[in-house]
Amino acid sequence: METTRIKYTPAVIARAKKIKLVLTDVDGVLTDSSMNFFTTPEGKTVEIKKFSAYDGIAFHMLRDFGIRTGIITGGNAPATAHRAHSLGMDFLYYNFLSKNPPLEDILQKTGLKAQQVAYVGDDLIDIPVLLRAGLACAVKNAREEVRQICHYTTAAASGQGVFREVAELILRAQGFWGEVLVKARAGEIGLSRKETPLLVDFKTWGPQKCRCRK
Amino acid sequence: METTRIKYTPAVIARAKKIKLVLTDVDGVLTDSSMNFFTTPEGKTVEIKKFSAYDGIAFHMLRDFGIRTGIITGGNAPATAHRAHSLGMDFLYYNFLSKNPPLEDILQKTGLKAQQVAYVGDDLIDIPVLLRAGLACAVKNAREEVRQICHYTTAAASGQGVFREVAELILRAQGFWGEVLVKARAGEIGLSRKETPLLVDFKTWGPQKCRCRK
Amino acid sequence: METTRIKYTPAVIARAKKIKLVLTDVDGVLTDSSMNFFTTPEGKTVEIKKFSAYDGIAFHMLRDFGIRTGIITGGNAPATAHRAHSLGMDFLYYNFLSKNPPLEDILQKTGLKAQQVAYVGDDLIDIPVLLRAGLACAVKNAREEVRQICHYTTAAASGQGVFREVAELILRAQGFWGEVLVKARAGEIGLSRKETPLLVDFKTWGPQKCRCRK
Amino acid sequence: METTRIKYTPAVIARAKKIKLVLTDVDGVLTDSSMNFFTTPEGKTVEIKKFSAYDGIAFHMLRDFGIRTGIITGGNAPATAHRAHSLGMDFLYYNFLSKNPPLEDILQKTGLKAQQVAYVGDDLIDIPVLLRAGLACAVKNAREEVRQICHYTTAAASGQGVFREVAELILRAQGFWGEVLVKARAGEIGLSRKETPLLVDFKTWGPQKCRCRK
Repeated sequence: METTRIKYTPAVIARAKKIKLVLTDVDGVLTDSSMNFFTTPEGKTVEIKKFSAYDGIAFHMLRDFGIRTGIITGGNAPATAHRAHSLGMDFLYYNFLSKNPPLEDILQKTGLKAQQVAYVGDDLIDIPVLLRAGLACAVKNAREEVRQICHYTTAAASGQGVFREVAELILRAQGFWGEVLVKARAGEIGLSRKETPLLVDFKTWGPQKCRCRK
Repeated sequence: METTRIKYTPAVIARAKKIKLVLTDVDGVLTDSSMNFFTTPEGKTVEIKKFSAYDGIAFHMLRDFGIRTGIITGGNAPATAHRAHSLGMDFLYYNFLSKNPPLEDILQKTGLKAQQVAYVGDDLIDIPVLLRAGLACAVKNAREEVRQICHYTTAAASGQGVFREVAELILRAQGFWGEVLVKARAGEIGLSRKETPLLVDFKTWGPQKCRCRK
Repeated sequence: METTRIKYTPAVIARAKKIKLVLTDVDGVLTDSSMNFFTTPEGKTVEIKKFSAYDGIAFHMLRDFGIRTGIITGGNAPATAHRAHSLGMDFLYYNFLSKNPPLEDILQKTGLKAQQVAYVGDDLIDIPVLLRAGLACAVKNAREEVRQICHYTTAAASGQGVFREVAELILRAQGFWGEVLVKARAGEIGLSRKETPLLVDFKTWGPQKCRCRK
Repeated sequence: METTRIKYTPAVIARAKKIKLVLTDVDGVLTDSSMNFFTTPEGKTVEIKKFSAYDGIAFHMLRDFGIRTGIITGGNAPATAHRAHSLGMDFLYYNFLSKNPPLEDILQKTGLKAQQVAYVGDDLIDIPVLLRAGLACAVKNAREEVRQICHYTTAAASGQGVFREVAELILRAQGFWGEVLVKARAGEIGLSRKETPLLVDFKTWGPQKCRCRK
């Protein structure tokens, strides 16, 4: 994780100031894009998810300052749901290869506008949401077509603190960073009450909702 | 994964235009060449396979454009069969240290010619198939003897989107890339019907078939 | 792991000479900051911890020379307890996002002063203990705010021998390194009697103790 | 894995010509020095070993040319025994922090001289055996004190084909490399009969044997 002080452009800061919700992809953003599987002796296949400790602290920090968080993923690993619970995220939409319908659903549920939402992605299937988000963030090693349409590209590589970098950008832009450091010295990061994430599975929710979107 | 625009030679493009089937090795191509094992408390040994999310999308893309896919591997991890199923591949030949017999079998089953087949490999046991394939691809960190006989060496290292890079090369050469990006913006990648892979185990199939090949 | 001879400043050597106990964070120090999870087919989520063999030998070396060791972590992976047992550490405090109370408890239990304690950390929640420790060590890829307040920043990256580097620094400063190499040639490293670590869980211990600290 | 042609010194070639047995450490040589653990919901701790596919082929190659192989490790992961079996190694001595007694035992059992044995190591506990071996090999990222006493340091980093590099060095020095490539083109690598490894556990064997060695 590169932590050399990053310079933000005024345009990025202006966008970051408005953010009330940070949504993210999982594979290639919260993880390094590896998809790890094993099959038990009884024949059940299990997926291992490789998250980052730095990102974990970032979810706590955002929550401490009232900024909501969530995931929209094409995958369906139960370990992602575990992570969403233990970090107190607000939303987990899974099995969504088409990502705009969940974004619209979240906007409706929260009453937020797209300009108040940041999204972090890395691959082509993230493009529809990135084109809508107020702050569109690509990971350093995202596909070229993704980086081209984003407002911000992280210095961190996938799985190595990408979400943390975006969280810091937002907390700094909103003037909260000094308070984060005060909390750190006092041992008080992550003490705010955790949310129980809303879980939405495309397989039960999506097909109907997506039908009417065309 | 390096995504800086790659320049293809005219000879590689000419070969890529003819491809109707993309076959690949697993270890050191779809994975980073690590072989991960644990033994359960009951004494059963389990293998973890570390695939790439970028490659996963590539199998979907090829299928969306009618290009078939498959695996020929010397290994036998059940997690590879899981991956072949969930990505809708056409073929999985496993336990094959000698890889030409499965290639010949696939050519016979599909009616394709070797010039219509791409193969991606990294190690010495891939050489027999690479010498036959219409488009022979080596991963960046393949053994020197492998790279020397291949038409194309990837910019991506093993496990970090090698198959994706080869898939993009083929889709671009065949003029499909613009359509891929249209699908991406519409949230419609990977919606084509998945194949159920044909599974062939050397231990039951190979010994007889290989006997007659000498 | 970088093993090119490292130059220590006289101030760091002076601090290292006094150390009788080396405490460390886990995620991002003993590990590479990845947080790896899978959920069993029965629905139980399991965490995989990725430690370093180099650090393992370091815990043995310190014990061979009478220097105590321990962990203060915000996490709670049972595999960390396993590692603490198999390496014969003295202390394991877990589930502590606020890390000063366990430090104070250890000082009281051992009769040591803070100047006799080294601590290795990487993230903001380590700051309170790093500000107290006699030898405050940051990993190479620690957050910038952490490196700024530390006496020593390792050449090794997280999970790649950070603790080993700090242990060597201390053993060299205290004049034990020649003896380590003699033991190595004789095949006698790690033969001293292992401690059984004291395990303290914030969930049962912390809430009461922490209440009275403000 | 770096596969640029490596230049060997005449002294190294002379040593490699005599080798009839290649022994190796596990952690930090066959693996990248990570020690990966998880604890099952039932409370049993399990170790994951991360080997290299390149090294796997190397064990096959050496066996094809009558060169024996084996492991001397301080660890005791059952997955290492699995690997020794599936690759047809000759020896697996485990739980040995003191590594010379197993070397002497193997020399006695095989009738070989130490000059006919290569050993690959990375850390201080490998020093006693490295000082005895005819061809002492250190991995690229071995501890400095280890590299200093070795005849050869690999270009490959731990877990990324170190054993393969040493195997190639020996096969080239003994004039077998051309034959390896002929086998590769014919799809005939690894077809020689596998050995069943002799397993020796320090906990049952070592304490008595080691007692008499001082």
